[in-house]
Amino acid sequence: MTFFRSRWCDAPDGAEELEPATLAPGFRAAAVHCGLKRAGETDVGLIACDSDQVTSAVLLTRNAAAAAPVRVCRDRCDLGAIRAVVVNSGNANAATGEQGILDALAMQDGAATALGIPGVSVAVAETGVIGVPLEAGAVLAGIRGAADELSERGGVDFCRAMMTTDRGPKQVTLRVGGVTVSAQAKGAGMIEPGFATMLCFVQTDAEIGDPGAALRRAVASSFERITVDGQMSTNDTVVLQATGAAGRPLPEGVLDAVLLQLALEVVADGEGAERVARIRVTGGRDQGEAEGVARAIANSPLVKTALTGRDANWGRIAQAAGMALAGKEWDEPGPHSIEFEELEAETSEAEIAIDLGRGDATAHVYFSDLTHEYIRINAEYTT
Amino acid sequence: MTFFRSRWCDAPDGAEELEPATLAPGFRAAAVHCGLKRAGETDVGLIACDSDQVTSAVLLTRNAAAAAPVRVCRDRCDLGAIRAVVVNSGNANAATGEQGILDALAMQDGAATALGIPGVSVAVAETGVIGVPLEAGAVLAGIRGAADELSERGGVDFCRAMMTTDRGPKQVTLRVGGVTVSAQAKGAGMIEPGFATMLCFVQTDAEIGDPGAALRRAVASSFERITVDGQMSTNDTVVLQATGAAGRPLPEGVLDAVLLQLALEVVADGEGAERVARIRVTGGRDQGEAEGVARAIANSPLVKTALTGRDANWGRIAQAAGMALAGKEWDEPGPHSIEFEELEAETSEAEIAIDLGRGDATAHVYFSDLTHEYIRINAEYTT
Repeated sequence: MTFFRSRWCDAPDGAEELEPATLAPGFRAAAVHCGLKRAGETDVGLIACDSDQVTSAVLLTRNAAAAAPVRVCRDRCDLGAIRAVVVNSGNANAATGEQGILDALAMQDGAATALGIPGVSVAVAETGVIGVPLEAGAVLAGIRGAADELSERGGVDFCRAMMTTDRGPKQVTLRVGGVTVSAQAKGAGMIEPGFATMLCFVQTDAEIGDPGAALRRAVASSFERITVDGQMSTNDTVVLQATGAAGRPLPEGVLDAVLLQLALEVVADGEGAERVARIRVTGGRDQGEAEGVARAIANSPLVKTALTGRDANWGRIAQAAGMALAGKEWDEPGPHSIEFEELEAETSEAEIAIDLGRGDATAHVYFSDLTHEYIRINAEYTT
Repeated sequence: MTFFRSRWCDAPDGAEELEPATLAPGFRAAAVHCGLKRAGETDVGLIACDSDQVTSAVLLTRNAAAAAPVRVCRDRCDLGAIRAVVVNSGNANAATGEQGILDALAMQDGAATALGIPGVSVAVAETGVIGVPLEAGAVLAGIRGAADELSERGGVDFCRAMMTTDRGPKQVTLRVGGVTVSAQAKGAGMIEPGFATMLCFVQTDAEIGDPGAALRRAVASSFERITVDGQMSTNDTVVLQATGAAGRPLPEGVLDAVLLQLALEVVADGEGAERVARIRVTGGRDQGEAEGVARAIANSPLVKTALTGRDANWGRIAQAAGMALAGKEWDEPGPHSIEFEELEAETSEAEIAIDLGRGDATAHVYFSDLTHEYIRINAEYTT
């Protein structure tokens, strides 16, 4: 097993890792280059389920400036019966007005026509620069090309077609309990998902009785627990598709483990990231308080640079916690209430913790460090 | 006039700028090196009023992990009658427990004894690393030394003794309407003051009827409108002292202008800062909404790096606004509702704006960019 490599994610019992290009049975995918990205890299991906017996669940960003594809998914899809997903990278089709909606609808229609399925069964996802009109003609030609090349072994190609500033594809295919699960995700900046993630797609031949509940639970302990730069994206989308063709349920915990490791991959591949940390907060007065402290620490540029510099500067943890608790009474924190030693450890994954000593509520967040490379990428990545 | 150099701050009518070492009449200051900072730089400062007729106001950080000197000011000072301020840099004396409180009280007592005034009339302020015990003996020796060297021309020395990662002192002395005002501030990181600032001290011989109201109003439009890294400090302190010896009031607007320009200096001298921007938000449904959007934009690392890279990437402004409005209905923003052109201008001060189109509420925030130098300073600045 090479996928479940984080210290914070256990592999599900009995899981066997398959070659990641292989999709769950009943699904095919492909990717092409249509011209949105330079240098011939693939930028349009298509994934389709052969069966019309598919059930699905979709979670979308809560950002009020949601991109056109998110609005199309929300308003123009049967989210419980998604058969195909069409994706492009290089352009987020966000803040693109009415034309953006029309372009996303054209992508939906183009994929539906090419696949011979209803438009409402096609989800659309896009990622890349915001505020630039989509070259819809090129994308539509790409969709037709991809539809002609669908393959049961198209998982890696599809995943690569989503990449922007990602250093590599983030994906897995597992065989466990008589069913198969394949999943693909992309990062790498504008990452602090709000009840969804950047882009993540999961396919399985297992039976999932309530895909919505299963997905919400898995996302709550994975993508909703990560941050790279504290920025909720305009395009966060996660899609779960299940055919049930295997005639067996998805074993307990598999979806959670797959999404948690993918979420950790997104953090580890955060823009410029060199190290990942988990902050555990205990002793909060209530859930909101513990959560607020965890996010304040995870998003503090001072804590993030201490992680980069391997500096056991626990005072920055105390300061960020105190900021989140501003205006409340709090006994002065001391080093005895903070686990900070791994800030300066050689490990790439650091565990830090703070006990607020105020109650029983707990929370944790996974986060990346802040490096020169983040500055380089974002001061140079341009329209 | 060289002080009021920001495009966003007009000099008060008839104001004359004096040599900044000169303090307002009735005040003297000094600085010494006691050993907290390396290379012989001054690290203890003292400023004292000769008159016992002084009135004062003090604002302190709301951070729940407030430093020992902040707690001493809050609990052990007569904040309406502060005669002297003792400051050290190099150690914030924050998250230092009971011993930290005892050390801050010893600083207060040491200054009071050296000056022959009551302990409750001495405010204590400290800045530097968090969570490290103070070398109180050295600081107390420094206080005695500074008390012997008090000078009417000690303003610059005092200001330099506060500096940590600051590139230079931030201060001014003005003669206006028959009164004199001198003021000193320090930045440069952990800057998003919550109803106060990092460290700022103001002295005047004017009569100020209600120093608390005057200070709160001036801070509301200056230090409470800035951010460098979104981090509320443990040590924010601002002190206003007025003797009234000039027998004349402080002209309307002078305190506001002095604190606004000092706040802008703190942003311009933010850690690693190369450019400063003002984000103006209009069309908010209510004040909280406009304020939230302004701060989300000002603290977005993506907007900050666009400012660094002179990248007119207005999509990042739309995304940050949408994040602040998460879960609310919002018409898609377009370039017509965002002024972003100065992101790519050659100017060091950039004006950007967004019209939310939802109501009449407005807000603005001044912020610095995010550069390699911020990473260098904070990944290397260590305990």
